[in-house]
Amino acid sequence: MAHIALQEGVPGIVSLMMFSPETAAPLNELAEVLLRNDNSLTRGERELIAAHVSKLNDCTFCHTSHATFAALQLEGGWDTVDAVIADPHAEAISPKIAALLDIATLVQRGGKAVDHAAIDHARSTGASDAEIHDTVLIAAAFCMFNRYVDGLATWQPTDRADYAQTGAMIVEHGYAAATPRPH
Amino acid sequence: MAHIALQEGVPGIVSLMMFSPETAAPLNELAEVLLRNDNSLTRGERELIAAHVSKLNDCTFCHTSHATFAALQLEGGWDTVDAVIADPHAEAISPKIAALLDIATLVQRGGKAVDHAAIDHARSTGASDAEIHDTVLIAAAFCMFNRYVDGLATWQPTDRADYAQTGAMIVEHGYAAATPRPH
Repeated sequence: MAHIALQEGVPGIVSLMMFSPETAAPLNELAEVLLRNDNSLTRGERELIAAHVSKLNDCTFCHTSHATFAALQLEGGWDTVDAVIADPHAEAISPKIAALLDIATLVQRGGKAVDHAAIDHARSTGASDAEIHDTVLIAAAFCMFNRYVDGLATWQPTDRADYAQTGAMIVEHGYAAATPRPH
Repeated sequence: MAHIALQEGVPGIVSLMMFSPETAAPLNELAEVLLRNDNSLTRGERELIAAHVSKLNDCTFCHTSHATFAALQLEGGWDTVDAVIADPHAEAISPKIAALLDIATLVQRGGKAVDHAAIDHARSTGASDAEIHDTVLIAAAFCMFNRYVDGLATWQPTDRADYAQTGAMIVEHGYAAATPRPH
């Protein structure tokens, strides 16, 4: 049972956004800008960073959601996502994305864990300042989203199939469309 | 030196917001809603939660900033802030705020660390669902802000006096006023 009174049968962050539409708006705008706005990293690549950090934080809802969104937008679909989640250096992705996932792994441990070696390595694979910035902020943001969703003990389906419909909606309409109207 | 090219002499998250005004907007809106909008927790109490989590994450910039904002808005000023940062159960604050700080401590460790005992205890001191929600989200948000500021190795003054001017500005005009204009 959730730690606060949330709408039954509504999963993860969706139930929290219904509880608090006032904070839902900036949270969804942040997700939209970080994961969907024009960027040299594709939407699928950015969702992969979100899924990877959510896995490290052991957040079922966020991990399965963003793995779904990544699978829907990456070449190779679930095969690519499963390979990279099992091994962030998998052949399915470029050396640059592998290096950015390594930075995300360090951010999950703590801000001060990000060292010059990881940054230099990412740069040697062609990562730009903007891509390094966005990777750090995506990883940091999921250290927030994961704690929000698990810290209030929300209901979280474990079956991937339960995330497919929301996935299709987010991929088509974006995160802003998911913000409940303030009551 | 910072991990990416940031404006020299500009501290912490301010330099990141200049680098990326697009993400600065929702980040400042989130801070404004969480820490300053109408709430049964005072602005000073919410800044204290932010300062406490930032201390646990060892983020000098965020800790000193939000400790300053708390000191400017709490009865007892720095004496209260210093007492609570040293001991979250200090007499200077109510049992309810102490219980909420305990929840924030658990959120900093990870979402799943928040247990029923901590929630039940907070409720026994009079904490509402909304106050528990806001505490978890404030603590989670600072697990993001702290990682963002430290993960990119921003410049961070260590002297409290260097935070006084920004403190007065934020207390008077709010976080939205701190968003740089997109270029």
